[in-house]
Amino acid sequence: MQGQAQQQAYDRGITIFSPDGRLYQVEYAREAVKRGTASIGVRTEDGVVLAVDKRIRSPLLEGTSVEKLHKADDHIGIASAGHVADARQLIDFARQNAQTNRLRYGEPVGVETLTKEVTDHIQQYTQVGGARPFGVALIIGGIENGEPRLYETDPSGTPYEWKALAVGADRGDIQEFLEENYDGGDSLDDGIVLALEALASVNDDELNPEGLALATIETETEEYAELDTDEIREYLEANDLLAGEDADDEDEEDDEE
Amino acid sequence: MQGQAQQQAYDRGITIFSPDGRLYQVEYAREAVKRGTASIGVRTEDGVVLAVDKRIRSPLLEGTSVEKLHKADDHIGIASAGHVADARQLIDFARQNAQTNRLRYGEPVGVETLTKEVTDHIQQYTQVGGARPFGVALIIGGIENGEPRLYETDPSGTPYEWKALAVGADRGDIQEFLEENYDGGDSLDDGIVLALEALASVNDDELNPEGLALATIETETEEYAELDTDEIREYLEANDLLAGEDADDEDEEDDEE
Amino acid sequence: MQGQAQQQAYDRGITIFSPDGRLYQVEYAREAVKRGTASIGVRTEDGVVLAVDKRIRSPLLEGTSVEKLHKADDHIGIASAGHVADARQLIDFARQNAQTNRLRYGEPVGVETLTKEVTDHIQQYTQVGGARPFGVALIIGGIENGEPRLYETDPSGTPYEWKALAVGADRGDIQEFLEENYDGGDSLDDGIVLALEALASVNDDELNPEGLALATIETETEEYAELDTDEIREYLEANDLLAGEDADDEDEEDDEE
Amino acid sequence: MQGQAQQQAYDRGITIFSPDGRLYQVEYAREAVKRGTASIGVRTEDGVVLAVDKRIRSPLLEGTSVEKLHKADDHIGIASAGHVADARQLIDFARQNAQTNRLRYGEPVGVETLTKEVTDHIQQYTQVGGARPFGVALIIGGIENGEPRLYETDPSGTPYEWKALAVGADRGDIQEFLEENYDGGDSLDDGIVLALEALASVNDDELNPEGLALATIETETEEYAELDTDEIREYLEANDLLAGEDADDEDEEDDEE
Amino acid sequence: MQGQAQQQAYDRGITIFSPDGRLYQVEYAREAVKRGTASIGVRTEDGVVLAVDKRIRSPLLEGTSVEKLHKADDHIGIASAGHVADARQLIDFARQNAQTNRLRYGEPVGVETLTKEVTDHIQQYTQVGGARPFGVALIIGGIENGEPRLYETDPSGTPYEWKALAVGADRGDIQEFLEENYDGGDSLDDGIVLALEALASVNDDELNPEGLALATIETETEEYAELDTDEIREYLEANDLLAGEDADDEDEEDDEE
Amino acid sequence: MQGQAQQQAYDRGITIFSPDGRLYQVEYAREAVKRGTASIGVRTEDGVVLAVDKRIRSPLLEGTSVEKLHKADDHIGIASAGHVADARQLIDFARQNAQTNRLRYGEPVGVETLTKEVTDHIQQYTQVGGARPFGVALIIGGIENGEPRLYETDPSGTPYEWKALAVGADRGDIQEFLEENYDGGDSLDDGIVLALEALASVNDDELNPEGLALATIETETEEYAELDTDEIREYLEANDLLAGEDADDEDEEDDEE
Amino acid sequence: MQGQAQQQAYDRGITIFSPDGRLYQVEYAREAVKRGTASIGVRTEDGVVLAVDKRIRSPLLEGTSVEKLHKADDHIGIASAGHVADARQLIDFARQNAQTNRLRYGEPVGVETLTKEVTDHIQQYTQVGGARPFGVALIIGGIENGEPRLYETDPSGTPYEWKALAVGADRGDIQEFLEENYDGGDSLDDGIVLALEALASVNDDELNPEGLALATIETETEEYAELDTDEIREYLEANDLLAGEDADDEDEEDDEE
Repeated sequence: MQGQAQQQAYDRGITIFSPDGRLYQVEYAREAVKRGTASIGVRTEDGVVLAVDKRIRSPLLEGTSVEKLHKADDHIGIASAGHVADARQLIDFARQNAQTNRLRYGEPVGVETLTKEVTDHIQQYTQVGGARPFGVALIIGGIENGEPRLYETDPSGTPYEWKALAVGADRGDIQEFLEENYDGGDSLDDGIVLALEALASVNDDELNPEGLALATIETETEEYAELDTDEIREYLEANDLLAGEDADDEDEEDDEE
Repeated sequence: MQGQAQQQAYDRGITIFSPDGRLYQVEYAREAVKRGTASIGVRTEDGVVLAVDKRIRSPLLEGTSVEKLHKADDHIGIASAGHVADARQLIDFARQNAQTNRLRYGEPVGVETLTKEVTDHIQQYTQVGGARPFGVALIIGGIENGEPRLYETDPSGTPYEWKALAVGADRGDIQEFLEENYDGGDSLDDGIVLALEALASVNDDELNPEGLALATIETETEEYAELDTDEIREYLEANDLLAGEDADDEDEEDDEE
Repeated sequence: MQGQAQQQAYDRGITIFSPDGRLYQVEYAREAVKRGTASIGVRTEDGVVLAVDKRIRSPLLEGTSVEKLHKADDHIGIASAGHVADARQLIDFARQNAQTNRLRYGEPVGVETLTKEVTDHIQQYTQVGGARPFGVALIIGGIENGEPRLYETDPSGTPYEWKALAVGADRGDIQEFLEENYDGGDSLDDGIVLALEALASVNDDELNPEGLALATIETETEEYAELDTDEIREYLEANDLLAGEDADDEDEEDDEE
Repeated sequence: MQGQAQQQAYDRGITIFSPDGRLYQVEYAREAVKRGTASIGVRTEDGVVLAVDKRIRSPLLEGTSVEKLHKADDHIGIASAGHVADARQLIDFARQNAQTNRLRYGEPVGVETLTKEVTDHIQQYTQVGGARPFGVALIIGGIENGEPRLYETDPSGTPYEWKALAVGADRGDIQEFLEENYDGGDSLDDGIVLALEALASVNDDELNPEGLALATIETETEEYAELDTDEIREYLEANDLLAGEDADDEDEEDDEE
Repeated sequence: MQGQAQQQAYDRGITIFSPDGRLYQVEYAREAVKRGTASIGVRTEDGVVLAVDKRIRSPLLEGTSVEKLHKADDHIGIASAGHVADARQLIDFARQNAQTNRLRYGEPVGVETLTKEVTDHIQQYTQVGGARPFGVALIIGGIENGEPRLYETDPSGTPYEWKALAVGADRGDIQEFLEENYDGGDSLDDGIVLALEALASVNDDELNPEGLALATIETETEEYAELDTDEIREYLEANDLLAGEDADDEDEEDDEE
Repeated sequence: MQGQAQQQAYDRGITIFSPDGRLYQVEYAREAVKRGTASIGVRTEDGVVLAVDKRIRSPLLEGTSVEKLHKADDHIGIASAGHVADARQLIDFARQNAQTNRLRYGEPVGVETLTKEVTDHIQQYTQVGGARPFGVALIIGGIENGEPRLYETDPSGTPYEWKALAVGADRGDIQEFLEENYDGGDSLDDGIVLALEALASVNDDELNPEGLALATIETETEEYAELDTDEIREYLEANDLLAGEDADDEDEEDDEE
Repeated sequence: MQGQAQQQAYDRGITIFSPDGRLYQVEYAREAVKRGTASIGVRTEDGVVLAVDKRIRSPLLEGTSVEKLHKADDHIGIASAGHVADARQLIDFARQNAQTNRLRYGEPVGVETLTKEVTDHIQQYTQVGGARPFGVALIIGGIENGEPRLYETDPSGTPYEWKALAVGADRGDIQEFLEENYDGGDSLDDGIVLALEALASVNDDELNPEGLALATIETETEEYAELDTDEIREYLEANDLLAGEDADDEDEEDDEE
């Protein structure tokens, strides 16, 4: 009870420190991320793989409109988890930033540079009053100087670089799966399969292609490319991860997105 | 009791996260949407159908002044549900946006583009202080590149694309009806009938033409057109959905609009 | 008790949503409207009738200074109910708007256009912080394209068009009287009598001409005209609604205006 | 108890509506008016009379510095009651307005026009945040188009026109006296006597000339003129209202001014 | 208890009205004035006398740095009581105002004019949000058109003109002494003696010249002049008011200044 | 208990008056001053002495970086006590002010002038909202017109001139010591010894030269000069105030700085 | 309990003083620093050593992206502890400041100058409203005029100069270790070993090179240089501090970074 009352004291107005040095509004924003379905990023030598669970809540909803996978620039893709409308703001911010970089310097923005521009923007919303933090985590993947790079932004505005990571619902379990199974495999195919297996590991080992989205940024071409449903289905079939017909529709989880 | 006290803690000042990562003011705005009568959108190959329940509370009230159906541009219509005065602001915002697009680029705005401009505008009211979220959901339908498109905006500022959807009162039941009966039929007529049947399904299977409004945006003509009361009455009669004379007037529901 | 505590939680700072999607400050502003004496609008084919109950609280008060009936433009009149000082602000806003329209477009503003300018202005005060909503409802009547039009604005900023309506104290009873007795009669005379009978219906069927104000906007002339006390007395006498001498002075009701 | 707690809830921050549609800060400002000594205005055919009770709390205080009677323009006077420092602001506002009117239009400002400029100014302080309402009521009297006019402004920003009125302490009793004794007498003398009798009626029927101030604005000359103490003493003597020597000094009432 | 709780409700944020029409922050600022040592002003035909009790709390403190007596212009002096740092702001404001007047109009500012500029400035801090009232009262004395004038400003922003007055600690007792002994004596000497006797009346009839400051503004010369300690000592000796050596040092009163 | 609750009511938001006319935030800022180690100023005929207790909490901390003694201009030094970071702001403010004075008027700023610029700056933070008061007291010493001057600024923004004073921890005891032992001695040496003895009086009569800092501003040279540790050690030895080797390191007092 | 309630009273809104003169938000920010892993700075004659504990929470996380060691300019490095996103803001601020200095004055910024620019920036966030303090401590090391300098900035905005120091988790124990073992050794090697031993002292005397970062700024070259993992491993091996293989991965501490 007391702990609860104490917590409530910190959730109003601008983001401020609690007596033990925590920023509750930022931690609550992390909870908003967990309310979103999972997104996964895997880095291989041949490029970066981004995979997202879009879990469609109605058969009448167009899956393509559930925006969790975004092209930020030719060579950079972003997967998000959490509050969808907030994600859109950050994606727009990242796209404009990438565009400005091309205009100003005549070259594609670096993945790390872009990530840090985004996290600096996020941090402002945790320190200056009059607004709330962003309730979203991003996975930013791309090619920089011929190298695949994979970053995470969290609601505190901290940038991290990963070999492979998950954000959103079931992050803990999926991350554990990735740590046990990631072997730095060379090919994009290996990365795609690992991402799908990781997602399936928290879904009774079967997935519905309509409820997924997958993109790769190849090291060689430096091009962001999304797979279509048929391609995803093939991967699922080939790896024995394809769900039965109605599995997805029965999903009753209260999904933030 | 406790849950209630906890909830009250989050409903003041600017919109902020609760300990479980929710934005209560946005969720309360969704309740404001449910307080409005239902609006329905149906997409067919031949175009988009928008249908709204205007439920007139007095015989002296001019039904045409109950604004739930709006022409945003020649090729785009918008149906709303929720807080009427808020809807007017978003409709105005959408119309100006469409007009600006024509002036600046010399061509009609895309349905998706327009929807996202509106949702970005909505999102700002959920993150930056000094205002409350919009208590309204919109169904934006139109023709884009010869294709019918149907979108939803909700109070969080998230855009969704649908084949068919309902917003406002009884959304759950009507959406269920649509999911069971939508077959992607080709003609606008099919769409109109489905929309009316869906609305009737939560009104003892009978409707009053004076309490309805219906609009179509045809794929071929790319023109927004509203049906008059007689045309609606014919549809109702032909499908055995026409209410007895005084059905509507006795409605005592406390209606937001 | 609990309901009361809950309500108190929403009445401070800017207008925000309650858990059930209501805007309490707007609803309280509606209570402010009910604290004002009644105003009535009736639309006939020959024009619009506006009638207001001014109920003078002291014989030394100049009845003409109790402002409830206003000429907004040559062809538009406005009756108000509720917080008088707020009404003055909206009337000024409407007048300036009408004047600007004449200057900019060289023609009189439309009744619907003017109404919507006013309601958009009202809505801002319910969404953006730093101010309270307007505690007033307006009846805006006038001639547009040769047709009589009659609108209402409420504190939420929603516009409605009516055949006949009442706002302010006893709205419910008077509106019921109007619904039972309105027959869309042709003449302004019919409209005046209906308005007076409706007002009298909640005043023991007798009225004092000094405590009333009446205006018409004729369809043909498109001119706003106020009746003087003698003309009103004649109507009351002719319809057996004239009160005895001291009836009005004894009024002890706590009147907002 | 409960009523009190409820009231306290509305008295902070900006002025907002209570659940029953009242503006408590405005009502409290009216209490501030009642804390000031009384001011009276009487309109006769020959001009307007303004009389104020200045009740000097120390024999060392210069009575002339207790500002309750003000010349706003050659043809307009203002008497105030309530918070003195607030009154000064409104008087300054009125004077500047009158001056501006002369400069811009080359003619004296109308009494009604001036009153409404003042009340619009007052209203702003009751709706927009960041300030409190004015705790003062004004009686504005003057000549307009050869006619004497007498207005009141209250803390809500509502203008009223009167034949005769009182504001400040004992308003109820004095107003009752005025209603019983006002007969619309023609001469300024009659008005002066009525005003003094009304003031005396709540002061054991005797007044001290040093504790009073009196001004007239004559219809014919259109000139504001203040009476000196000797002139006031004569009126009091002639009407048997002159107090004994020490009456005033013993006054212990806690006077706002 | 209850009264206390009620009071606490009004002391935060901007200055607002209490249910009985009082401005608590202004009244609390008046308490801040009472926390300061006394200042006295006396008007005689030959000029104005200002006297202040500086009560030095340590023998190491330079008495001249306890600022309670200020020259505002050649012909105007100001004595203050209350919050010293606030007084400095108002003195600066007054000095700049006097200087501006000389520059703009080529003549010394009037005492009344200056006083009202100051009180208008004070009033703003009691009505507009974002600041607290000034916790200081000023006695402004000077010569205007060959006449000595003596004014008071209080924390509400009200100006008063006095023959003689006291502000600060023991105001009540000193004012009573002044009322009993002021006889409008002609000479400055008489005024100085009265001021010293009044101060002594609340200090066991003896004063320490080091703890006092005295200034005069002579009617004839129109010059502000401060007396030095020796001159003050002579006045004290001549009137049998001189304290024993250590009287002042033992003072333990908790003094605001 | 009650007193405590009452106090808590005044410590939030902007600085406001309590019912007894106090400014709690200013008084709390005075507590912040007491949390800092002591600083002392002594004025002699030959110049001003500033001495500060720097009490180093770790042998690895460079004593010179504990900033309590500052050169503001060639002829002015400042010693501070309280919140170190706040002190830095005021020192910067004073330095810029001194520099501007030289540029603008071609001469060194007066000690009194500079002090009052600083106190006016401090006062603003106690009256205008949006910031807290400065938690620091300054001792400003220097030469002005060939005379040594010694001033204090406190968190309320009041300037005082002293012969000798202490601020910070143990102010009461040290000030008492100064009052008993100050004899207005002529030489800087006398002043230095008095300052060291006063500091030692609250430190078991022994001091560590590394934990002290000392500066003088000589009347003749008008130059600010800091003593080095060896010079301080000599003074301590000569006056039998030198502490044993480890005395300082064991200090466990919770020191603000 | 009471102490807790009292504390909660000070943690909202802008940073303000508590009754005992403390700034709770600043103290809570210091707790945020303690939540971060430790950073250490050691000054030797040959240069400055910065060492940080990066403790990687997942084997898939790229250790290089855990930013605790930063190059601010060629000759200045900064180690941070606490809230990572806040640290980034201050590092950016420092870098821009160093760059501006080079542009404006054509020479490298001084270490002390840079430190004080940073602390002044930090202080603003503790005094002016609308934002929270920075939850981070910095160790700023570099060469200035051929001398190695080592500074600390804390959340209050106070600058300190050190011979050797630790910030972040276990500060107390590590600082004690440094105090006992620091001997002002000449070589950078000595400094590196001391830093590693100090870190190891709170980690069961063994460290993992992947979880560390080390940088030096040599006095002679004035160049910031980071050691790579192999170099660190060699130091650990040579000093018997190398951890077993899986030691680091099992770390379960809840780490702020």
